[in-house]
Amino acid sequence: MTLALVKERSNSRFRADRFENTVVHVIGIALVIVAIGMFLSAMVGWIDGGPDRSSDTGSLVASGAIGVVAGGLLWWLSAVPVRQSPVVAFASVAWSWLAVSILGALPFLFSGAIEWAHADNAIFESISGFTCTGSTILADIEAVPRGVLFFRSMTQWFGGMGLIVLAVAILPALKVGGLELIAAEAPGPTTDRLDSNVTETARRLWILYGSVTVVVTVLLMLFAGASLYDGVAHAFATASTGGFSPYGASVGHFDSVAFEVIISLGMLYCGASFALHWRAVQGDWGIYGRVSEFRLYVAMFFVLVGLIMWVNVSEPFGLATNLRHTSFSVAAILSSTGFGTADFALWGPAAQAALLLVFMSAGMSGSTSGGMKVLRLQIIAKYAAREVVRARHPRAIVPLRLGSTVVPDVVVSRVIGFVLLYVTFSVVGGLLLAALGTDGVTAFSAAFSATGNIGPALGEAGPASNFLVIPRAGRPILMWLMLFGRLEVFPTLLMFAAAARHISKRRVAGYASVTDRR
Amino acid sequence: MTLALVKERSNSRFRADRFENTVVHVIGIALVIVAIGMFLSAMVGWIDGGPDRSSDTGSLVASGAIGVVAGGLLWWLSAVPVRQSPVVAFASVAWSWLAVSILGALPFLFSGAIEWAHADNAIFESISGFTCTGSTILADIEAVPRGVLFFRSMTQWFGGMGLIVLAVAILPALKVGGLELIAAEAPGPTTDRLDSNVTETARRLWILYGSVTVVVTVLLMLFAGASLYDGVAHAFATASTGGFSPYGASVGHFDSVAFEVIISLGMLYCGASFALHWRAVQGDWGIYGRVSEFRLYVAMFFVLVGLIMWVNVSEPFGLATNLRHTSFSVAAILSSTGFGTADFALWGPAAQAALLLVFMSAGMSGSTSGGMKVLRLQIIAKYAAREVVRARHPRAIVPLRLGSTVVPDVVVSRVIGFVLLYVTFSVVGGLLLAALGTDGVTAFSAAFSATGNIGPALGEAGPASNFLVIPRAGRPILMWLMLFGRLEVFPTLLMFAAAARHISKRRVAGYASVTDRR
Repeated sequence: MTLALVKERSNSRFRADRFENTVVHVIGIALVIVAIGMFLSAMVGWIDGGPDRSSDTGSLVASGAIGVVAGGLLWWLSAVPVRQSPVVAFASVAWSWLAVSILGALPFLFSGAIEWAHADNAIFESISGFTCTGSTILADIEAVPRGVLFFRSMTQWFGGMGLIVLAVAILPALKVGGLELIAAEAPGPTTDRLDSNVTETARRLWILYGSVTVVVTVLLMLFAGASLYDGVAHAFATASTGGFSPYGASVGHFDSVAFEVIISLGMLYCGASFALHWRAVQGDWGIYGRVSEFRLYVAMFFVLVGLIMWVNVSEPFGLATNLRHTSFSVAAILSSTGFGTADFALWGPAAQAALLLVFMSAGMSGSTSGGMKVLRLQIIAKYAAREVVRARHPRAIVPLRLGSTVVPDVVVSRVIGFVLLYVTFSVVGGLLLAALGTDGVTAFSAAFSATGNIGPALGEAGPASNFLVIPRAGRPILMWLMLFGRLEVFPTLLMFAAAARHISKRRVAGYASVTDRR
Repeated sequence: MTLALVKERSNSRFRADRFENTVVHVIGIALVIVAIGMFLSAMVGWIDGGPDRSSDTGSLVASGAIGVVAGGLLWWLSAVPVRQSPVVAFASVAWSWLAVSILGALPFLFSGAIEWAHADNAIFESISGFTCTGSTILADIEAVPRGVLFFRSMTQWFGGMGLIVLAVAILPALKVGGLELIAAEAPGPTTDRLDSNVTETARRLWILYGSVTVVVTVLLMLFAGASLYDGVAHAFATASTGGFSPYGASVGHFDSVAFEVIISLGMLYCGASFALHWRAVQGDWGIYGRVSEFRLYVAMFFVLVGLIMWVNVSEPFGLATNLRHTSFSVAAILSSTGFGTADFALWGPAAQAALLLVFMSAGMSGSTSGGMKVLRLQIIAKYAAREVVRARHPRAIVPLRLGSTVVPDVVVSRVIGFVLLYVTFSVVGGLLLAALGTDGVTAFSAAFSATGNIGPALGEAGPASNFLVIPRAGRPILMWLMLFGRLEVFPTLLMFAAAARHISKRRVAGYASVTDRR
């Protein structure tokens, strides 16, 4: 999208009659891109030729047509100003997320997979897709036409496209919750203004992202005997750490160790920072070893696998199965993907509690993963350790370091503020769900799963279940949590606050224009 | 204890052959005081004249004799140096807590109420008493001799005596977790060195504490028809916000609205700061309205009662019962007392979740209550709010205020560090309990209840149950959490660290001597 923005720039002077609004413009582009994805999915559905081929392709073509017309109009009628601030870029991405989520709900409704009376469920499924969460309200996934299911996995891949630029370039520039620290150990492609340089970065990140998708697809087909359809669909959901699978049993459907190993490696790769991958692809492979967040991320994986295998010893399966299920589940949760093979909602309480803690942390900053990010946990842990030292030596000056970089106090404050808000949002969400009658474990794990964009929860909403167990009135709460978590809470709050103020001032464009026009 | 210390000072120069060690000296005094309590309880048991009168009084007299001999020897053989630092005062109180907890376990064992094979349970009950927690492992409380039960309530009252001096004078001087803020809005009787001035303060606080106990007893007898035994036993557990009752059904045993109202008011009074009460008794009644922590404490009570009554509307009891049960339970948890009338472990998940959050906050700083204290929640909430403002106005300088006082950043750091450690300790405790096979809700609520010195938990360890549902190996974890929570985590960590270091250096006295002798 950012790329398209810049190309558009040169044309805009010829069409001065169009109103200047970046947000509307980006929404238009996003709708058209998603519509193209719908046409592609319609082709897939037609070739795949399931029993409901006509309703399948029909619903996707109709949705695509609506997307092209609506998106095309918005795109054509608006123009972008010459220079973009990160704030405007953020607002554009955020609002287009909402717009495509509504468009993405249409195929479910047109194909009859979800009744119109439950249109809210279709929007839930779509938001869960575009935010790369992967929670589902589909009770019988295999009953949904295959083209629509292909599109469902693709929504996550589109979400990942927006996310990767957001995570690597936009959010660090906005200094959200201390994310500027991404550059502390490995200066990456972040900047204060989104100029052609960053657009070039976005293009390269997308090439990398696309390559990962292709590699996972090919590996799945070569070594795990997956069909092209299954390979692409699961690669979409892996690269975006989304976790939608066209099968009710998720990755467990294939019951293949090779399949699980490939997906695990893919999830762990995409749960790590794309800023690092970008540097590594440029030849600096040593970057992985030098970045403390990456080391901690890898260490967390192994420690968690060891720990959970240990408490799972009492479960009725052998060591090999324990290793297989535990390592896959930890990779799925740590990367916030949420694919399932084993139903960890049936494991012992200690294993579940450990997983719930990982729900909150999830992957690295600068990745497509959700959660609070390993980086912030690092800061928080070092902060607590420093206070212990200070209690003993009150006059000592103990700088907080990340690798060899001293983290400024103002950044530490942002991280703590973020963590407090994140936890508050999730806890309030959990309380509301519980107030609606959900049992405690399900309510709180669902809230933390949604804010962390994980996918499955615990209790009754485990990986073998779906989110229909949450009362209907509770699902909009989860939708908001998914969006808030995805957009890192802080700027989203400010965005809605600004939009509300501008609407009350009867100005159309809202947030985008504030910083932009001055 | 502090009072006795100072009196002793003048004698110490005549007995220079005694070794100078404040910790040992205070342990001796504490043991003797508790032994005296045992003799008193033996008299109560004799007068009450239950069926097991002889074993009852016998076990208490025997325990008392051991306490007097052991305590007397330690007292007589040691001496205190002339000036005391708050660090030494803290170490003395902390170690004597451990010592009296072991002595306090004896009556349960001697009377046969707890078998010797389960001596760990007797220590659990005793620690739960002296830390004013109120969790019990007695499955059939009424089967325990009445004298022993009276002593059991008295352990909490003794714990409260130590606590009140700790909370008002010692911890703020140690600047633990930002507790020096107690004085921010209402300068109280805190100081940097424990001189005769503070000893005088301790005496006054104890007079106030004793008066509350007497008032609650008299009110219970006059307006709720309680016997002297029941009145005193419940007044002990109310003034200390402990929550031990000589009846299995706790306060619910009496089924009396008058009883519950008196106890509720007593709990709320003692969950508020004694530094404030002290000022109020001196004539400054307006102090309550001027202190923001007190206003928030009262507001929390009413908001929580309203909220929980609202979600409890679906429970099968009417509005009057709802008000009665909810307000009593909220007062019991908010003050960290833990008396029970209704079994809130059977309420809806939202009501339970709300109570669990109160487990963590509990009462005001400077009170006998447990938890993180309202003061720290205030700081944390203001901190998060400030970060939201800062995200919008990055260059704004926003001081964090408590009333009209600006809170320095270093104090805010202490508070956040404390909260992080507190939560980490509780979560790790919960994880360990879950790993031992306890279900998730019970495990985590028990851990938070223990660190917060509340008493009952949720799940299987609710107010109508007991802590035998926790596996035997898990109960020592709870004992440590009770002690850590009681002593505000930070200094306890340092104390044990220092003691370990000194033991390894083959020095006897440990922590106390470090700061003292220089």
